[in-house]
Amino acid sequence: MKRIILSLCVLLMVQLAHAQYELYPANWWVHMKWNKVQVLVRAAGKDLKNQTAAVQYPGVKLEKISRFQNPHYLVLHLAIGPEARPGVVTIRIGTDLVQWPLGSRRPGNGTAFANGATAADLMYLIMPDRFSNGDPSNDRVPGMRDQSLNRDSVFERHGGDLKGVEAHLDYLKDLGVTAIWLNPVIENDMPNRTEHGYAFTNHYKIDPRIGGAAAYKKLIDAMHTKGMKMIQDAVYNHTGLEHVLFRDQPDSSWFHRWPKFTQTNYKDQAVFDPYGSKVDRKIMEDGWFVPSMPDWDQSNPFVQTFLIQHALWSVEEFGIDGWRIDTYAYNDLPFMNRCNQALYDEYPRISIFGETWVHGVPNQSYFCQNNYSIPFKSNLQATTDFQTLFYGIIPAVTQPFGWTEGVNKLYTTLAQDFVYKDPMRQVIFLDNHDLARFYSVVNEDTAKYKLAFAWLLTGRGIPQMYYGSEILMKGTTWPNDGYVRLDFPGGWKGDAQDKFTASGRTEKENAVFSYIRTLANYRKRSPALTSGKLLQFAPYDGIYIYFRYNTTQTIMCAMNTNSKPVTIATDRFREVLQKFTAGIDVVSGSRISLKDSLTLNPMSNRVLELK
Amino acid sequence: MKRIILSLCVLLMVQLAHAQYELYPANWWVHMKWNKVQVLVRAAGKDLKNQTAAVQYPGVKLEKISRFQNPHYLVLHLAIGPEARPGVVTIRIGTDLVQWPLGSRRPGNGTAFANGATAADLMYLIMPDRFSNGDPSNDRVPGMRDQSLNRDSVFERHGGDLKGVEAHLDYLKDLGVTAIWLNPVIENDMPNRTEHGYAFTNHYKIDPRIGGAAAYKKLIDAMHTKGMKMIQDAVYNHTGLEHVLFRDQPDSSWFHRWPKFTQTNYKDQAVFDPYGSKVDRKIMEDGWFVPSMPDWDQSNPFVQTFLIQHALWSVEEFGIDGWRIDTYAYNDLPFMNRCNQALYDEYPRISIFGETWVHGVPNQSYFCQNNYSIPFKSNLQATTDFQTLFYGIIPAVTQPFGWTEGVNKLYTTLAQDFVYKDPMRQVIFLDNHDLARFYSVVNEDTAKYKLAFAWLLTGRGIPQMYYGSEILMKGTTWPNDGYVRLDFPGGWKGDAQDKFTASGRTEKENAVFSYIRTLANYRKRSPALTSGKLLQFAPYDGIYIYFRYNTTQTIMCAMNTNSKPVTIATDRFREVLQKFTAGIDVVSGSRISLKDSLTLNPMSNRVLELK
Repeated sequence: MKRIILSLCVLLMVQLAHAQYELYPANWWVHMKWNKVQVLVRAAGKDLKNQTAAVQYPGVKLEKISRFQNPHYLVLHLAIGPEARPGVVTIRIGTDLVQWPLGSRRPGNGTAFANGATAADLMYLIMPDRFSNGDPSNDRVPGMRDQSLNRDSVFERHGGDLKGVEAHLDYLKDLGVTAIWLNPVIENDMPNRTEHGYAFTNHYKIDPRIGGAAAYKKLIDAMHTKGMKMIQDAVYNHTGLEHVLFRDQPDSSWFHRWPKFTQTNYKDQAVFDPYGSKVDRKIMEDGWFVPSMPDWDQSNPFVQTFLIQHALWSVEEFGIDGWRIDTYAYNDLPFMNRCNQALYDEYPRISIFGETWVHGVPNQSYFCQNNYSIPFKSNLQATTDFQTLFYGIIPAVTQPFGWTEGVNKLYTTLAQDFVYKDPMRQVIFLDNHDLARFYSVVNEDTAKYKLAFAWLLTGRGIPQMYYGSEILMKGTTWPNDGYVRLDFPGGWKGDAQDKFTASGRTEKENAVFSYIRTLANYRKRSPALTSGKLLQFAPYDGIYIYFRYNTTQTIMCAMNTNSKPVTIATDRFREVLQKFTAGIDVVSGSRISLKDSLTLNPMSNRVLELK
Repeated sequence: MKRIILSLCVLLMVQLAHAQYELYPANWWVHMKWNKVQVLVRAAGKDLKNQTAAVQYPGVKLEKISRFQNPHYLVLHLAIGPEARPGVVTIRIGTDLVQWPLGSRRPGNGTAFANGATAADLMYLIMPDRFSNGDPSNDRVPGMRDQSLNRDSVFERHGGDLKGVEAHLDYLKDLGVTAIWLNPVIENDMPNRTEHGYAFTNHYKIDPRIGGAAAYKKLIDAMHTKGMKMIQDAVYNHTGLEHVLFRDQPDSSWFHRWPKFTQTNYKDQAVFDPYGSKVDRKIMEDGWFVPSMPDWDQSNPFVQTFLIQHALWSVEEFGIDGWRIDTYAYNDLPFMNRCNQALYDEYPRISIFGETWVHGVPNQSYFCQNNYSIPFKSNLQATTDFQTLFYGIIPAVTQPFGWTEGVNKLYTTLAQDFVYKDPMRQVIFLDNHDLARFYSVVNEDTAKYKLAFAWLLTGRGIPQMYYGSEILMKGTTWPNDGYVRLDFPGGWKGDAQDKFTASGRTEKENAVFSYIRTLANYRKRSPALTSGKLLQFAPYDGIYIYFRYNTTQTIMCAMNTNSKPVTIATDRFREVLQKFTAGIDVVSGSRISLKDSLTLNPMSNRVLELK
């Protein structure tokens, strides 16, 4: 009995002690390749300066303790040997005992999941607060700074969550979606504008307003059951002003500090410019993205390890398939390489792409694997392909055709693909959470819209669409980007319209929905579109013809960017057409002869499977 | 006496025989690295099919004879051994004796001339027919097809010639010019539009209407005496419809033939596009440039040798310093590499640049030495930098400033220089014989014009200006390119105005002339501008600041593209300004303090030598 009471007391002490300690990472796994873990320990109310630390766990060795100016922190350098078994590691800090779980890895040790998004996928970007409210009980979470809940304001919280996403997986799967990229899911305990999620305040917490870790795991498990992939949005460059590591900094070297607030200049050129000034590059990389987001000092090895470990932890903890990196060009690029490499090493099939909101193929390709023999070589697989958007599909449908204008821009931008190591990994898109919705870009012209979607779903790379595009959601970034982050109608109980259902959609919406759905589902099964090559012909008179093909299938895409029908002779394409005499329109199912000529509807992109 | 008569008879026979034979190359030299010469022999009125050939000359060996379907031709493969001495090689063809001079090389065997144009030069492009008429006796040459002579028509001949150029070398030298690039000087015996010179009719003849070989040699010798360099304009891709080798083709494999006339598609993309169609590339490379210019089949080894030998011959025969290659992207690129390499091997210091009238830094850089690890690697040193023109200085002075507009385009285009192996070799320019004259591009705004010239003379690369730009010549390519090829006023005896002299120029012209002259002459002596590095700062508010520097000199160029004066703080530039407190305006000579701020005139590019 005495022993039991003693045990209970110890347990109680441990619990109490644990409550005062924060450990980052919160837990780890045996048999990880990353088996030297730096556990950042924080005890807000304590002075750890002179505290010793010890670990008693078979196979786990405390190799070193690092201390900081701020006595609330220690870093414990733990080595996890191959003989370590899953369990709870007890760490003694001074007289306190703290627990640190050491789990077994997911089956396959990093090879059976984290499959990566490929050109075979269709990625659907969702802003969790704005898609669907599956659990109204978490809309406001007591104790959090942003207590707003007002669907009438684009700036305030709307209540969307992960359960809402999960509830629509069948809808998405039916649409043809195979992968979901969520805007960040990490806790953003900021006072306002928390809808976007890019201001992390605790890396090891999934935001409770979208359902927390449990809902995230449940969603991902459900997705995996349905054969869908989850892409996590990573933010290495900056964090939220209310992040505990910023509010209570270990020392002065964790964040970029400036005599007065200094914003980045957003000049990607400063990073690769052979003539660039030191100061422009420093401001680009070390300036803060916005006043509410402190800029990590990625030259600090503790910061580096903190960020890398969080990436590995996220993938292993939740079973992430792919990784999207925010504001890629603003990071310390050699550090990004280390970070990416740690993920590649641990998860050989993971896909990683970075955001490159830049102008110019050289600019963009500098930041990913490319064919340049230059001192800096990025190991990032691909980027968000802003070039095929800004200098591709947008001019194709909005600009009169000319020698360098209109669809010639799309042709030229693709011809410049020789600079990429693997352009088929580039993420192509029509819009996202930062850009005007494409339906507004084309002035709500459904012909242009369908043309562009046909390109998105037949183009080279990994297509990404933005939530609600299939139901013609519109909005521009004027007066602010909140207007491209409106709610998906029907995502909330009691919504006047439910556009998740055919009956809730207008005729026009259903027509576009059906067009996208047909193409997206066709795409899924098409070897030419998912893993085939691209062959393109120089555009003439606003007509752009390209083919996707492999040994088993050839698809002809015939884009007419004119507002009138055009008939073209097919003779020019005989190097591809040789053995084909007709094509099946994959949308209408009708058979189209290609013997002599092909008539194209005004502003259309006909997709023909050749026969 | 009998012997003398016999000798005379032989001599006469040889002369007669020689008159019937054309030999390409017309002559060669001992001790060339290119010592296996293929002499293409043509005898128009003869049947050489069964004729034997023999060479009696110490050190020269006839290794092989090649024959063609057309009996007018033979190719003699001659090997010129190191023991061969200068003299006249007698070649016996059948019973005819033909003479082929073998000269001594210019001193230095290719190392004492062919010095190449560098960033230390200022290149001045002249269309010989339109600059100055130094010898009215050659304006019309009897027997040539184009007998026009009419200065009132932009299409007809005007009478300008090489003697006219020679007569103005001091004028050019005084202006600050150190190198002249002439539009082609080779015979263009075409029926019309012969002013531009791009339709060769006899590679081994300098056009007699500009003075022929003698005037060309005299001009180049005079230039060398004055320390100036000659850049020859080479056209490998096509030739004139009246070229003897087209009119009387050796066989059907010397020119690209099409079932019906097929023009090139002018799509450089088709050459490097990883997705490009075969037919687009074939039409790009093998289509004819224009109906009057047959396209050489550069896959024919005889054509290859003919073109390479002519290049080497031109440099050795005339003492050329640099080589400009027309329509570079239209050629067979592996052949171009061989061709360039033959010149590099023979003349290690020669400079070669190619015309790349394309859109996009990737497009342009593909055609010259670059940092791409891709299957095709060009060995061309540099190109005509259309990118810093179209996407650089033109938007800088004609487009409102914006995130990607105005002078930001110039900044970005230069930042993309990391793709070039040596961007300092790029030829930068404001206009040329094919483009609207820059003074017209800026709507005759001298402030914009001077700004752009200051950039041209301080920018990275080899600056090239177009004749008459210094006196504000204007003209656009509408209704046709003849209007950018007008006569230099004063170049013809009796011209109403002589703008070669200060008194013949208006006040405005003199102001611009003097501005260019001052900068160009300053440039000559400036180590920073001629061999220094570039450092640029990202533009803000239409202000673009860049520096040229080396260990001994630093020059600040401050470009204000606004139409109002602007004062900028100099603090931002302290990484360069640190040891400098002032700058001498190299145009006005005045000393400008840089301690706190710098005031910039509206639409100006102030060039300051830092002190």
